[in-house]
Amino acid sequence: MPSQYTVGVGEVAVDDDFWSPWIDRNRDVTIEYQYEQLEESGTLENFRRAIEGKEGGFQGMWFQDTDAYKWIEAASYELAKADDPDLRERVDEVIDLIAGAQEESGYLDTYFQLVEPENRWTNLNIMHELYCAGHLIEAAVAHHEATGEESLLDVAVDFADHVDDIFGDEVDGVPGHEGIELALVRLYRVTDEERYLDLAQYFVDLRGHDDRLAWELDNSGEIGGASWDDGALIPAEGGGSLFLDDEGEYVGTYAQAQAPVREQAAVEGHSVRAMYLYAGVADLVAERGDEELRTAMDRLWANMTEKRLYVTGGIGSAHEHEGFTEDYDLPNESAYAETCAAVGSVFWNQRLFELEPDPAYADLIERTLYNGFLAGVGMDGEEFFYVNPLASDGDHHRSGWFTCACCPPNAARLFASLGQYLYSTAGGELYVTQYVGSSLSTTVDGTEVELAQESALPWAGEVTLDVDADDTVPINLRIPEWADEATVAVDGAEVDHDGSGFVRIEREWDGERVELTFELEPELVAAHPAVEADAGRVAVERGPLVYCAEAVDNERPLHQYAVDEAGSLEASHDEDRLDGVTVLEADATVPDLDGWDGELYRPVGETDREEAGLELVPYYAWDNRDPGAMAVWHRRA
Amino acid sequence: MPSQYTVGVGEVAVDDDFWSPWIDRNRDVTIEYQYEQLEESGTLENFRRAIEGKEGGFQGMWFQDTDAYKWIEAASYELAKADDPDLRERVDEVIDLIAGAQEESGYLDTYFQLVEPENRWTNLNIMHELYCAGHLIEAAVAHHEATGEESLLDVAVDFADHVDDIFGDEVDGVPGHEGIELALVRLYRVTDEERYLDLAQYFVDLRGHDDRLAWELDNSGEIGGASWDDGALIPAEGGGSLFLDDEGEYVGTYAQAQAPVREQAAVEGHSVRAMYLYAGVADLVAERGDEELRTAMDRLWANMTEKRLYVTGGIGSAHEHEGFTEDYDLPNESAYAETCAAVGSVFWNQRLFELEPDPAYADLIERTLYNGFLAGVGMDGEEFFYVNPLASDGDHHRSGWFTCACCPPNAARLFASLGQYLYSTAGGELYVTQYVGSSLSTTVDGTEVELAQESALPWAGEVTLDVDADDTVPINLRIPEWADEATVAVDGAEVDHDGSGFVRIEREWDGERVELTFELEPELVAAHPAVEADAGRVAVERGPLVYCAEAVDNERPLHQYAVDEAGSLEASHDEDRLDGVTVLEADATVPDLDGWDGELYRPVGETDREEAGLELVPYYAWDNRDPGAMAVWHRRA
Repeated sequence: MPSQYTVGVGEVAVDDDFWSPWIDRNRDVTIEYQYEQLEESGTLENFRRAIEGKEGGFQGMWFQDTDAYKWIEAASYELAKADDPDLRERVDEVIDLIAGAQEESGYLDTYFQLVEPENRWTNLNIMHELYCAGHLIEAAVAHHEATGEESLLDVAVDFADHVDDIFGDEVDGVPGHEGIELALVRLYRVTDEERYLDLAQYFVDLRGHDDRLAWELDNSGEIGGASWDDGALIPAEGGGSLFLDDEGEYVGTYAQAQAPVREQAAVEGHSVRAMYLYAGVADLVAERGDEELRTAMDRLWANMTEKRLYVTGGIGSAHEHEGFTEDYDLPNESAYAETCAAVGSVFWNQRLFELEPDPAYADLIERTLYNGFLAGVGMDGEEFFYVNPLASDGDHHRSGWFTCACCPPNAARLFASLGQYLYSTAGGELYVTQYVGSSLSTTVDGTEVELAQESALPWAGEVTLDVDADDTVPINLRIPEWADEATVAVDGAEVDHDGSGFVRIEREWDGERVELTFELEPELVAAHPAVEADAGRVAVERGPLVYCAEAVDNERPLHQYAVDEAGSLEASHDEDRLDGVTVLEADATVPDLDGWDGELYRPVGETDREEAGLELVPYYAWDNRDPGAMAVWHRRA
Repeated sequence: MPSQYTVGVGEVAVDDDFWSPWIDRNRDVTIEYQYEQLEESGTLENFRRAIEGKEGGFQGMWFQDTDAYKWIEAASYELAKADDPDLRERVDEVIDLIAGAQEESGYLDTYFQLVEPENRWTNLNIMHELYCAGHLIEAAVAHHEATGEESLLDVAVDFADHVDDIFGDEVDGVPGHEGIELALVRLYRVTDEERYLDLAQYFVDLRGHDDRLAWELDNSGEIGGASWDDGALIPAEGGGSLFLDDEGEYVGTYAQAQAPVREQAAVEGHSVRAMYLYAGVADLVAERGDEELRTAMDRLWANMTEKRLYVTGGIGSAHEHEGFTEDYDLPNESAYAETCAAVGSVFWNQRLFELEPDPAYADLIERTLYNGFLAGVGMDGEEFFYVNPLASDGDHHRSGWFTCACCPPNAARLFASLGQYLYSTAGGELYVTQYVGSSLSTTVDGTEVELAQESALPWAGEVTLDVDADDTVPINLRIPEWADEATVAVDGAEVDHDGSGFVRIEREWDGERVELTFELEPELVAAHPAVEADAGRVAVERGPLVYCAEAVDNERPLHQYAVDEAGSLEASHDEDRLDGVTVLEADATVPDLDGWDGELYRPVGETDREEAGLELVPYYAWDNRDPGAMAVWHRRA
């Protein structure tokens, strides 16, 4: 079994009209740019200085090392799919630097090695050594799985062993930024060393119990990281501290330490951290079947999906702490909905699916991939959103690489490894979870399976699968939540199904063609009445896509449109717009501008409205043309 | 002619079921509290220290002297209406301190006298010496008119003469905070000294021409006020400077110095400053008939009322600079709409009315008095809003006296002088501009007139006027903009009129009774389509009152209600609520909560709404009961 999910990156080759251009741009533009940034930003120079035993001269953020690790991880996924000698060579060069910088003890963190070697492991809240270790391990495992080499795996093992030596002994505490938990499970899966699982369990179980994080904040002047100013260390927008309540008392919410994980009832705090933690917890549950943790996962997932999720799959409402706020608090224009959090949600949901193949997880992954995640990446592969609002006055635009470069590399590793989110062999059956053109070559409970998928999504609802297998294999085909009508046929013979969830077909496969058709009717959706931001509003969806209105496509200011909920929604494919998208036109009305001359307020009875179509494009494609206002939620008439 | 308007405070005795309780609380509670604060805040102590020639020890804001002046002005209006020996004595004591602190030269500003005597007249942008002078002069004129005494008038004259000596000679510049312009015209009107009018004209004409204000900002470290930190001197919320653009260049907008007044096209910047300036300009026009300035006033008034005015009469959208922003930018929850700006708008509009008795000015004064102004004062007379939003999540509440105590004293002087806003003798005719129970005793073009008004507004539309006059007098009766139907009768004989503007009745008056009836139907109003904040929303008005919904009166969260624009609006008077108010119930719907179990988004077709009444109370009365959400603008269904 691969280290992350039941189907590995190397087992799937994506070849899809919609996704392949994104994946190609990711490989050719983003990953290349990411590589150049390693030199530009001083990331590699930090390793070189550490090798040379120099002091000071550190460049970038204190967790700058992760830029190198994330690049290796993304590059490794590319290498897993197809060898590329030039890329492989560059990866090896970077690995040489990393390995060279590692201390004898196994310790590796160029910020502390160069700047304050005496303060390592003193500031777990903020200084991110364990977070860096997590990314190192993930990169090492991906590299090992892609190439079979152990050059970086050895580094990761040495560092993990060093962490294992220190923690629970010299130091008792958990990281302020999670990530090492899921990484340790991955490391366990390739090394079969139970101690990594134990260490992951230690970090998960200690969280919310210990007062180490609180102690560090009380002593922030005397621990590592003092060279960073308070603003950087405790970065609350608008002042104040992310870690303290109004009375100045420590609250663990920001770092998911408000309660022991197994007692947590709501997703809280920094949303990327939450997703990384819960992904690791799901991994632990998969390995150890901890029912209490499993129940906590169900509770947290229900809270997130029922009360704290944007219609785009985005999560995290607030800029201040980049995270979750309160139930039903889902503002649109001020939404945070970080691209990395969408990526993290995909990580968590795929793991939950592997635990229990509930189509709801796959539905949410689909929603997140096509909307909340994809919007984060510009169609040039060079510009990115950190923040993904659901409405904009026209001032929100993608930028190039960020100083804190978390989102672009996260997007890069997700695109590069997209194949592993399309299928699953959970429980010894084959699941087709996402309809993306691809070929799969895997083993299901010992039986070799070859599957070739073609998909016209998201523009049309036709999918074909050609399947070969050595023996009888049950294949489960997901009927997406958005498909009001769906047909499934094997070699032309229709298969009965109840219209939702998975259609299970257990049979021998000898090149049979499975044909699926999904109705792709545009639909208006409403948000729960408790969501103030969406009161009286509708969003428009078609298949897996959430749509939005952009100023560039519409004559009037967007706020003047009211969508007729009984009206029509016309879909038409426009090859010339946004690399080819299906656009929608919704029946709507706008105010009649007559009679307002010189008046600011008038009796409603004297005002009138007139018909006007509201043109909509897929949300993921917004802000790729002339800058202007955007809205996902429209007033309903 | 009185110094401010054609009808003076002493000529009108208000006796009104609605307004008298406010005026009485103002006299008995607010003005008394205001007096106590003079000692509490150190205001009087500043004068005592100046008298004693001490240095340092200054208390309060750098314009703290104005607290004493404003109190004297409000108290003087009370004295103008009825003598009160105790109050008169306390006023005299405070005047003694002020007079004692004045320097031989006429200069008077205890901040500079105590703290940095060498820096007087160096920081006109911020240090407010001229603003203080303005309030001194206003207090002095009011005191003189009320009592006939010259004790404070002499101080004001000496200071005004000192200013006249300095400005245009030693110093060329205009105040960052206006107020002295209108004060100088008042001083001219009681002294008949043309030089005060010339000085007012100097300040008006120089504004926007000179580069003195810009120079001061460039040299802010070397001029007066350096003892105040930058935050206090250039107080832009969220950082940055109120006086500089993004490139760091001076822009005069904040202090209405973006262009010469006669060229200004839009109301800009700090809204209180703008109103004080334009009130002074209107006074100048009245005295000198400057057509260019008059045209500028028309242009600015049209911009404000057609594009920058809240439905409550409130003005100034932005907290950052306490002022105007862009056309149609009228956010509700983040509205600033400072109470003082509403007061300033009343000042300006009454003066515009005196220039040309257009009922539109009186309509706006009525709207402002009953709504945007009155909401600023709690029903206990002890708590005040500085900021008057049109929507609240429940966190916005009145507070007691402010450190920067501008709004409560401004409310105090307006309540105490309300009588002068009810009538006008502009152009030699009598105008009844506001329907507030009162008796008027004045002279119209040489003819003595006695008028007794009774009014059932704002709850019922019945007004009677009993009139006596020595000779034929034309009386103009305003038909309010909100009265779709109105009847006017003299001793039972109906008077023909066209249903709007003024009904003019020229005749002899010998105790005739004029009866007016106004239809008081609740009405839904819409905002101009360009106002994004109010798109798809309605406000509810009845007569002069704007209504709002408060959480305390309604079961569901306010955002869930949608008002049926074809439904009914039932009015009923409730003596037990909020000292007796007419409440409204609007036909509305709320979402059916069934079927949402565990769902955050659903197809619109599967959702339903159910009927529910939305209960509304007058906006002025909000936040006088249990704290909770409030909204003026409601979604329309």
